[in-house]
Amino acid sequence: MSAAPTFADVLQARDTIAPYLRPTALYPYGGLSAAVGGEVWIKHENHQPTGAFKVRGGINFMAHLPEEERRRGVLTASTGNHGLSVAFAAQRFGVRALVVMPNGANPVKVEAIRELGAEVRFVGRDFDDCRAYVEAAGSDGMYYLSSGDEPLLIAGVATHTLEIVEALPEVEVILVPVGGGSGAAGACLAAKSIKPRIQVIGVQAEAAPAAYQSWKQGRRVEAPMETFAEGLATRAPFELPQAILRRELDDFVLVSDAEIRGAMRLLLEKTRNLVEAAGAATLAAAIRIRDRLQGKRLALIVSGGNLTVAGLQELLNGTRQ
Amino acid sequence: MSAAPTFADVLQARDTIAPYLRPTALYPYGGLSAAVGGEVWIKHENHQPTGAFKVRGGINFMAHLPEEERRRGVLTASTGNHGLSVAFAAQRFGVRALVVMPNGANPVKVEAIRELGAEVRFVGRDFDDCRAYVEAAGSDGMYYLSSGDEPLLIAGVATHTLEIVEALPEVEVILVPVGGGSGAAGACLAAKSIKPRIQVIGVQAEAAPAAYQSWKQGRRVEAPMETFAEGLATRAPFELPQAILRRELDDFVLVSDAEIRGAMRLLLEKTRNLVEAAGAATLAAAIRIRDRLQGKRLALIVSGGNLTVAGLQELLNGTRQ
Repeated sequence: MSAAPTFADVLQARDTIAPYLRPTALYPYGGLSAAVGGEVWIKHENHQPTGAFKVRGGINFMAHLPEEERRRGVLTASTGNHGLSVAFAAQRFGVRALVVMPNGANPVKVEAIRELGAEVRFVGRDFDDCRAYVEAAGSDGMYYLSSGDEPLLIAGVATHTLEIVEALPEVEVILVPVGGGSGAAGACLAAKSIKPRIQVIGVQAEAAPAAYQSWKQGRRVEAPMETFAEGLATRAPFELPQAILRRELDDFVLVSDAEIRGAMRLLLEKTRNLVEAAGAATLAAAIRIRDRLQGKRLALIVSGGNLTVAGLQELLNGTRQ
Repeated sequence: MSAAPTFADVLQARDTIAPYLRPTALYPYGGLSAAVGGEVWIKHENHQPTGAFKVRGGINFMAHLPEEERRRGVLTASTGNHGLSVAFAAQRFGVRALVVMPNGANPVKVEAIRELGAEVRFVGRDFDDCRAYVEAAGSDGMYYLSSGDEPLLIAGVATHTLEIVEALPEVEVILVPVGGGSGAAGACLAAKSIKPRIQVIGVQAEAAPAAYQSWKQGRRVEAPMETFAEGLATRAPFELPQAILRRELDDFVLVSDAEIRGAMRLLLEKTRNLVEAAGAATLAAAIRIRDRLQGKRLALIVSGGNLTVAGLQELLNGTRQ
């Protein structure tokens, strides 16, 4: 396993990404505060140029990649937002990128990755199939980038929480979605280093609880993956973020796909932002555990907004997505 | 008529609003560039805390309002986004605000204005009814703020274009929606002062062409107002922005409500941003005049995103809004 990133790495990541990415907005919303009973602030990672937080990590990784590795190109597996991050960073740094995605991947993400000049290859039915494929098949001489176990990715995405704590020092609870776990690990790393009293709560889908169960049991557990929220959809946890979460995460909440859909609708209505399922999971969790959030100052990380028009239509018409 | 604002006022406005508002994103989108045939950059005013560009003006105005006027409170007429701007600024500066809105105003905007602590009063059927009401009825001792003829509002909103030209100095054409005309006047003021060769093109709805006709004829013309795009819906132009537009605006394009709806759908699909009708008008115009935009570098000001869920549903289901 790679060495865990430190808070110094997060501070360095902020400087590294600054020429490429502007800090995202953190706004309070009265309509959401009323729904939760605490003071709700939304961290708008959906405003990133790729529509998702992962790009912070992609830039931080690519900026540190030695020239020799850059010439080999970068290979990775992704359901979409990590791939978009890699494609965006690869374009900026003039690196070839190949993203292995599951068949049936979110077409908005596939199209955006291709528009950024990266190559897409479809393998298997979910993220873990893609991960197994790239890890087994080797990388055709390309550099293999793990979406979970790379410290530069964790330090990069941690800058979202650094921005939250700097903009809102009196924040008491931060909710963060967990897919592979790098975002949540980064949130812990940044928040706990600045102010250990800030509670960091991870959120995963009931229908894809691998990271949750691994965290609960203190060991690597695989679990079924049946959520529609592709950003939360992993069957197996990653070692490096799990190690950080085990040490630092205060709590872990599961939410149903129906609760996520309700939160997506509420975000549309109260913030006029298109939010994808993983991005709405934190609001779904805040509503589920509202009894213990009363009167508290909360930051919810809305991790991304890459929803398809078809998905939006199904959401609004109340049919299953 | 108030004195026209100068470029120095725009630079000062940027400093004035900086503690309250962060510069908004300006992103290129391959999917939109393909649709237009030029290089399309979107200025994301929908990312503002009020979901619309007007807040730049509201903050700039309120920051300069003398203490005595602040104590009287501020009265204004608005279809929504200007009212939201005033409510946001009034809350920040501890000023009472009363916003007169037409019956049937966009409920998302009404709710957001009230959440910011401002009072709402419904009058008549459209913006001009509200404007006539506040101008005739007097202001109950409150300070009356015109949404169009106030130089501090124009200098404030002009900062969107200052940000565009600074971030993308090689921009060739800027498209800006015209309702009352303050945003377009501000765009001219900022762009032409920095680089007179930048073309600034205003966009209005065919179904509400008062500002267009006034600009064409060089005199104040009223026109019917039947567009669904409330941000473009004025029956009579304002003097101060018209004077600037007459002098500075390069061209003025009208678009149909159907074209606006098509552009809203395209923005959803290609940028994953919820954009209200007025905000999508610039993309509709760019598509309409695409023949003369081939190969050019364009910035489209997406002025706001305050669309209701019902409006979104109708948009996606293809029924009229």
